[in-house]
Amino acid sequence: MPDKVLVYSRFPKAQLVRFGERYEILNAAGQRPDQAFAASEIADIRAMIASGGAPLGGDVMDTLPKLGAIVCYGTGYDGIDLAAAAQRGIVVGHSPGANAASVADIAVTLMLAAVRRLPVADSYVRSGDWAGRKPSPMMRPQAGMRGRKVGVYGMGEIGRKIAARVAAFETEIGYFSRTRYDLPYQYLPSLEALADWCSVLMIAVRAGADNVNAVDADILRRLGSDGFVVNIARGSVIDQPALVAALTDGTIAGAGLDVFASEPHAPDALTALPNVVLSPHLGGHTLESHVAMQDCVLANLDAFFAGKPLPYEVRGA
Amino acid sequence: MPDKVLVYSRFPKAQLVRFGERYEILNAAGQRPDQAFAASEIADIRAMIASGGAPLGGDVMDTLPKLGAIVCYGTGYDGIDLAAAAQRGIVVGHSPGANAASVADIAVTLMLAAVRRLPVADSYVRSGDWAGRKPSPMMRPQAGMRGRKVGVYGMGEIGRKIAARVAAFETEIGYFSRTRYDLPYQYLPSLEALADWCSVLMIAVRAGADNVNAVDADILRRLGSDGFVVNIARGSVIDQPALVAALTDGTIAGAGLDVFASEPHAPDALTALPNVVLSPHLGGHTLESHVAMQDCVLANLDAFFAGKPLPYEVRGA
Repeated sequence: MPDKVLVYSRFPKAQLVRFGERYEILNAAGQRPDQAFAASEIADIRAMIASGGAPLGGDVMDTLPKLGAIVCYGTGYDGIDLAAAAQRGIVVGHSPGANAASVADIAVTLMLAAVRRLPVADSYVRSGDWAGRKPSPMMRPQAGMRGRKVGVYGMGEIGRKIAARVAAFETEIGYFSRTRYDLPYQYLPSLEALADWCSVLMIAVRAGADNVNAVDADILRRLGSDGFVVNIARGSVIDQPALVAALTDGTIAGAGLDVFASEPHAPDALTALPNVVLSPHLGGHTLESHVAMQDCVLANLDAFFAGKPLPYEVRGA
Repeated sequence: MPDKVLVYSRFPKAQLVRFGERYEILNAAGQRPDQAFAASEIADIRAMIASGGAPLGGDVMDTLPKLGAIVCYGTGYDGIDLAAAAQRGIVVGHSPGANAASVADIAVTLMLAAVRRLPVADSYVRSGDWAGRKPSPMMRPQAGMRGRKVGVYGMGEIGRKIAARVAAFETEIGYFSRTRYDLPYQYLPSLEALADWCSVLMIAVRAGADNVNAVDADILRRLGSDGFVVNIARGSVIDQPALVAALTDGTIAGAGLDVFASEPHAPDALTALPNVVLSPHLGGHTLESHVAMQDCVLANLDAFFAGKPLPYEVRGA
């Protein structure tokens, strides 16, 4: 008999196929386990797979009396109440770095598309306005990338991959993170100093209670009227109403966002703006990063059921 | 009295300001000189500024009996009949490299946006379909950049800048050009071999009579169903109807195009496709590349009127 694993979050079925080949999967698909299944069905569940971003507190953990492991599909685990898990002796695992290249790629894609106004350009061609030689103020030449100072907020695996990519565009790279690393980029001692220094701010910090709304009206103002902000981390890191205001009144020039304060919702005030580029939290959604994330999930589950430490355990859990 | 310079092509006025500070500008704005001005006004014109891409043959040159220099605003000069200019003792100048960074940036922007389906993603968020949890087959995970083989067709200044940028995305770079260079990229001996080897083809070749429709149905077929083509060179290099067919029937996965066969026209068959990203020939249109192109134009004009060789002369003209 294969071990039973509960899938707590809602995932596309294609992403669960490999887990089903090795485990008996009970898919709660976003419902509380005790609402999706009878108590007898879940009484012996010892491990669950969750997305890292959705809230998962002690109350949910308590619906599974035998729960010993929460394995996050993805690098993030900000939704998991780590203290509650620790109190209950539940280990937490994730998929560090598995999607870093894909996420860094989307960060750069959004940066370039925002700076060069790609969605507006694409619409301009498709609408026939270009063929009709109808001028568009949005199509006037803008400052490009060369010579720009690009600030990376957070220098984990994704931040490093963003920095390596953006450096190839003849830019200067600076960063702020809690730790100063031996890297060929300028270190700025605070987020404020980074925002003063750069005109493009790339948010790649691991979300947590200490950085909720860290990028606020003050930080945005420091980027300046030629400034851009790109967020591929979590919506919680930006004060979203302040961002909408800064984009609307020209405090900054534009933004590229893969994440939002309350997903999958993007407010009308944001979706109506021409100077933003928006994507539906697809940073990690490439075929190769899904395979890599599934590898991590399976390695964590296999180790747990073999009574071994998780190879990709969340520290401090 | 400042020297007189005729502006042959149609340019936004903002791009001519610096020329007017040093020369007396007669702006034909796309008309034939002898239609825009009286013969007496243009009888003593010795130099003209032209966009490099629009046709400029001996008939137009003959409307200016004293013409000694054609200075192209931009790196391209494929519209200029070089043989006709040489016969008349007219030197031709251009702006090599001035816009290379901006054009390379757009090439990478289009590549990333096509591979990651950014315009579809942006529309998906703006339409409310994401918030409504309405699935979209276009939003299923696709192969990303990591590990891809990217082929660069043409290894001039723009091709090199494209290669340097794309290499940062954890890809392999190969190239084909007439000349094999000492570069850290794989050299493929033909366009066919390059297309067989790569899944993303970046067209950066200088357009000319020898490469009209070089990227045809056969080359596209060699890229494969996961293949992409990006063109920032000239529309003439691609067989555009063959491209539309390949995009429509799934022979390749997508395309990013900044240039078209007959600008500013993009055919309906192309603008209706969801798997293309289109921009209105804005590759070089950043503020910094306009300044650099204007620097080249002024350096060429100043040298010409001082009786010196053009610093940025087109060789073989």
